[in-house]
Amino acid sequence: MKQAKVRLYVEHPLGQGQSVPLERDQAHYLFGVMRMGVGDPVLLFNGVDGEWRCAVAEAGKRGGVLVCEEQTKPLQMPPDLWLMFAPIKKARTDFIVEKAAEMGAAKIMPVQTAFTNSERIRQDRLQAHAVEAAEQCGGTFVPEVRDLQKLERVLAEWPEDRQLMFCDEAEVGSAKRLGAAEGGKWAILIGPEGGFSEAERAKLHAHPQAHVVALGPRILRADTAAVAAMTLWQQALGDWA
Amino acid sequence: MKQAKVRLYVEHPLGQGQSVPLERDQAHYLFGVMRMGVGDPVLLFNGVDGEWRCAVAEAGKRGGVLVCEEQTKPLQMPPDLWLMFAPIKKARTDFIVEKAAEMGAAKIMPVQTAFTNSERIRQDRLQAHAVEAAEQCGGTFVPEVRDLQKLERVLAEWPEDRQLMFCDEAEVGSAKRLGAAEGGKWAILIGPEGGFSEAERAKLHAHPQAHVVALGPRILRADTAAVAAMTLWQQALGDWA
Repeated sequence: MKQAKVRLYVEHPLGQGQSVPLERDQAHYLFGVMRMGVGDPVLLFNGVDGEWRCAVAEAGKRGGVLVCEEQTKPLQMPPDLWLMFAPIKKARTDFIVEKAAEMGAAKIMPVQTAFTNSERIRQDRLQAHAVEAAEQCGGTFVPEVRDLQKLERVLAEWPEDRQLMFCDEAEVGSAKRLGAAEGGKWAILIGPEGGFSEAERAKLHAHPQAHVVALGPRILRADTAAVAAMTLWQQALGDWA
Repeated sequence: MKQAKVRLYVEHPLGQGQSVPLERDQAHYLFGVMRMGVGDPVLLFNGVDGEWRCAVAEAGKRGGVLVCEEQTKPLQMPPDLWLMFAPIKKARTDFIVEKAAEMGAAKIMPVQTAFTNSERIRQDRLQAHAVEAAEQCGGTFVPEVRDLQKLERVLAEWPEDRQLMFCDEAEVGSAKRLGAAEGGKWAILIGPEGGFSEAERAKLHAHPQAHVVALGPRILRADTAAVAAMTLWQQALGDWA
């Protein structure tokens, strides 16, 4: 059996014998760029039905059809982990979203803090990055990227049953660790490049569900901090444990 | 006392009362871009003498002089950790070097594996990225970036007293963890995008100092894997412990 070289996300139900129509740019990629033809295998996932080995049934310049042959992976949900971060320069924001999808966040929440420069984000572009990262990393789930929200408001509406791992840059070098926390619903909050304001820090330190954590003795950029924090969490409480 | 807004790496001795001449582009940055003048504070480090608060003594378009006033940090050496990785696309290779400096690697070693595309790297450019990362992250040490070496040769000359954390992509989803290893001299090896060859994997699995480690259930890109692996190591055996 030929091995599938391409793995694509589609917004269409997948199941035994299911036909899946292709969008124009996916058809262009498969048949134009990758030079595939009828019978060639492609892996599809939709974030719900797991991963399916499909075969090309029709190949055209503007479209095509794949047919699902065999489920190759069940849906693997990541833990119920939100990644909250303050958007930074474009390339690094893209990286954070990509990393969050690879590392297994369930939801990605850009938040506006006192020292966040960005007033808005391109949610659609960031969502596309999350899809691409899921295609690359072999995941069967795509985390939702939310629109930009004010941190203040997110904290005001904080759900009672969700813990918060607060990576406080001002704690650099301290011994604050995740410790003997329990799993379940969590969020990780990474600070903006300029740190949090004193008012924000006070509110976060006083937050009943917050766990203040130091990420080693050096100051990390936000994208590095995101990966490091998710590694610690996944290893202690998530699906790396 | 005015707070220093700029932190620079210099290749010059630092010590009480020491004068430090500036290079042309550093002078341009301080006096042209940042509009600093005589008396303004700047933080300097050279990877050896810790971090010093200096004051501008002479400011010119093509040069200038700073004078060291007070040591603000002693030299903080990272643990004796090498980061070995197979160079990938330019931007991601730059990121790996930056991340390695932030996360506290002592030496950064690009290695050529069977499936590495790059035949050469720009060592000087990568070293400059390591310097910039050290300037940003508040570190007082700059890891050396070595020139590209063949993995085969590095393994053939492997020092007997150094352990090797081998992050094997083929182990994704397995329970292989760093476990109860001892600290001391270590290296982390991250695979290339295409994975290791069967011959390389066999050699690495048979290596007496190798510890095979899985980085969770999803396939990580090389730059993500580098940060995740350094996080696990620093937390278990390094200066995050």
